[in-house]
Amino acid sequence: MSDLERSIIEKLQVVPGERFSLKDRDPRDSSLFGDEKETKAATATLAKSIDALQDRLYSEGSRALLIILQGTDTSGKDGTIRSVFNSTGPLGVSVHAFGPPSRLELEHDYLWRVHAACPRRGTIGIFNRSHYEDVLIAKVRGLASKEAVEQRYEQINAFEKMLVENGTTILKFMLHISKDEQKERLQARLDDPAKHWKFNPSDLEDREHWDEYQEAYEIMLQRCSTPHAPWHVIPADRKWVRNAAIASIVKATLEDMNPQYPNVSWNPGDFTIP
Amino acid sequence: MSDLERSIIEKLQVVPGERFSLKDRDPRDSSLFGDEKETKAATATLAKSIDALQDRLYSEGSRALLIILQGTDTSGKDGTIRSVFNSTGPLGVSVHAFGPPSRLELEHDYLWRVHAACPRRGTIGIFNRSHYEDVLIAKVRGLASKEAVEQRYEQINAFEKMLVENGTTILKFMLHISKDEQKERLQARLDDPAKHWKFNPSDLEDREHWDEYQEAYEIMLQRCSTPHAPWHVIPADRKWVRNAAIASIVKATLEDMNPQYPNVSWNPGDFTIP
Repeated sequence: MSDLERSIIEKLQVVPGERFSLKDRDPRDSSLFGDEKETKAATATLAKSIDALQDRLYSEGSRALLIILQGTDTSGKDGTIRSVFNSTGPLGVSVHAFGPPSRLELEHDYLWRVHAACPRRGTIGIFNRSHYEDVLIAKVRGLASKEAVEQRYEQINAFEKMLVENGTTILKFMLHISKDEQKERLQARLDDPAKHWKFNPSDLEDREHWDEYQEAYEIMLQRCSTPHAPWHVIPADRKWVRNAAIASIVKATLEDMNPQYPNVSWNPGDFTIP
Repeated sequence: MSDLERSIIEKLQVVPGERFSLKDRDPRDSSLFGDEKETKAATATLAKSIDALQDRLYSEGSRALLIILQGTDTSGKDGTIRSVFNSTGPLGVSVHAFGPPSRLELEHDYLWRVHAACPRRGTIGIFNRSHYEDVLIAKVRGLASKEAVEQRYEQINAFEKMLVENGTTILKFMLHISKDEQKERLQARLDDPAKHWKFNPSDLEDREHWDEYQEAYEIMLQRCSTPHAPWHVIPADRKWVRNAAIASIVKATLEDMNPQYPNVSWNPGDFTIP
């Protein structure tokens, strides 16, 4: 892990057990990185390193990496996936987007569909939204009782601990944008006909609840950043900063996992290809 | 569809109902394309077009594209996915690799696991191997009775027809390599320690059955190339030819599907972002 990577993680992580305020994190912060153009080039290099490390993870075949992306509408979850993971491609990365639960899913506990979507060994799985919606929108919109939401933080921590103990490394990223930046991005969807389909009038209703969402995020970050599955708050107003931060943390984490090509039980000289 | 794309499809398709011999198809053929370097550049451009078309497919949200890749060991299924689909990335493409069926899967009919893995609307799904193994390895290695295998061709055609009638376009590619080319590629896996994990001694057993596999492929191609889900035999000894051919056919097919950004039921002027 490079010094830069270490300082990125230290600065962006929500330290387990420490008091945390979302207001202390500036969505426009770019102080961790230098020049924009150079940083973008470095991110592309990191994406290639992630691809090479994923190849080793796949060959090793015994562990998985689960990346959880959370953030309000327009915070850039899709854009992050493209910038950081297209070099690895669909062969090594699977994305699961969680929308409103289906009727069948509602007939189960809220972690049922999540568990079913966890990545298989050797692969990187990305959750585009996740079980954290069950303590975010569920809390703000009252889709579950206060008691149920209150229980979920510890349930989630226990669930994630089980995943980690069984070979899945977990990285959690909250894409932190400002209310002004969201306004600009929503307006862009209104202004550009090719983006109209991305605009959902109900996004404006969520925007009316902005402060309540921020509060729900803050509680979630505080209670569910654990030593085994830490949260990182990513300054996401600037896309290049967001991509660089996430690529750095993913690459450092994979390097730390240090997956190995497996030893084979034969000698190359044992075989002649007929 | 360009003239080149049309000629590629005409040359590589297995024409439904016509007598077909695999020996008439040369795995080293590169006559459809010109210069290697220019063709590679054109393939990269096609990959970008596929990405743009997938964006429309996703926004439209009513249809899917299923791509089935079949081919012997080392025929380049993984390499094809990287070259043609990394531009689109894991956000729009999901890959499902079919290995030997699990115990649970064996407790169901052979199409059960396949159906479950079909792509959702708005996405491109790639099968790395598929239900066609059930008329290939199952036939050559006697994993199913002759009667059962014999019934499967029509079962598969009916299954695929149902998928097509319900909104999934299907493209099937057999990556056709020569026995000599396979020898070189297997030897490369023995020679390079970083590729040792890719070498499976049992691949050599399959190689001993080379002629039987070719015959099983020929029957499968003849009987399961249908107007609704045609087979294409891709000359795959040269990777750049393989990638160019598949990228061309995928791009032409998506263009033919012509997915549309959906009309929205509101006017941009109706909204002011607060």
